[in-house]
Amino acid sequence: MNQAQNDPGRSTRLFSFIGGATGEWRVTSMAAVAGATLAVAPRLKIVSGAATDVGNAWALRGITSNERYVTRNEKDSLQAKQEGLGRPSSVRAALIPIKKSPEWWGLPQDERRRIFEEQSAHVHIGLDFLPAIARRLYHCRDLGPDEPFDFLTWFEYAPAETAAFDDLVARLRASPEWKFVCREIDIRLVRDPA
Amino acid sequence: MNQAQNDPGRSTRLFSFIGGATGEWRVTSMAAVAGATLAVAPRLKIVSGAATDVGNAWALRGITSNERYVTRNEKDSLQAKQEGLGRPSSVRAALIPIKKSPEWWGLPQDERRRIFEEQSAHVHIGLDFLPAIARRLYHCRDLGPDEPFDFLTWFEYAPAETAAFDDLVARLRASPEWKFVCREIDIRLVRDPA
Repeated sequence: MNQAQNDPGRSTRLFSFIGGATGEWRVTSMAAVAGATLAVAPRLKIVSGAATDVGNAWALRGITSNERYVTRNEKDSLQAKQEGLGRPSSVRAALIPIKKSPEWWGLPQDERRRIFEEQSAHVHIGLDFLPAIARRLYHCRDLGPDEPFDFLTWFEYAPAETAAFDDLVARLRASPEWKFVCREIDIRLVRDPA
Repeated sequence: MNQAQNDPGRSTRLFSFIGGATGEWRVTSMAAVAGATLAVAPRLKIVSGAATDVGNAWALRGITSNERYVTRNEKDSLQAKQEGLGRPSSVRAALIPIKKSPEWWGLPQDERRRIFEEQSAHVHIGLDFLPAIARRLYHCRDLGPDEPFDFLTWFEYAPAETAAFDDLVARLRASPEWKFVCREIDIRLVRDPA
């Protein structure tokens, strides 16, 4: 069901990232950082609503949601520095689907928060790269019991920020939080409308 | 899709609460505490997987998920006192679907936690009624963009605990957290296999 089609005046929270033959983003690389890879796809299309992978290599669904760890101070700092998606200069992007371990999900909120920020500085690492690297998080885990990933993170930046983006993901991957990541795919893209 | 049917060795996190003509729970009352009510249904059936309301009054879906606010100490206290669902003595139940306001969902994590526990004592009120009143929380909000509720809470207890249950929900409804509840239905049930 495509909610935007059914009710064009209303914004949706649910989006599908479709890997296949079409879409304005051209895939330049796909790397399995942890766990099983995804099928190779030449292009990526982003649509609102829940799409299936019929006729495509894959379709990953995600929903924007409330913040799970961020404090008021962190939220205010992020909002003061960040810029939106869709900047004309942002012709590079990355889609990083991630699944965390059952051990992570079994931890209580205070212990997950402590690993996320006090030990891993997840928000503060992201802040270091604002506004150059724009980011939006989509949640998958509670869409249903069979989702292949827990999150999809979408990043957009200018070509000159490519090395900075590599630095950003390297710092996150070296953090204690990443010990709980059991599957991660790193998909790099170039905006290239057909 | 009923995952338990497709793969009986695997447990699912997704359940549907179906109000209609059949089911082992007989509805004794339905009250709209806040917002619009639900259609009257004589019985309730709980099934695994995502069911539709076709042929029934309504179907509410929910998914069990990780804890959003509970600390390690609170989790340990809950686990030390609580008993499971399905006790033979638990022939009374309540299903309470709740929707919270956009204002609630826009708050950062630390402010929601403070309202939830430091101001409203949500966990501690629940602890006061353990093990008599067993409880399971199902999340709906991130199943998709069109869910009518954010949570379904299911409670089970013995007939002698009915007044205690009324006290439990009254204390929660008087808390600061409940200022953010914009829709709430209170459905009471008796186990009465047909």
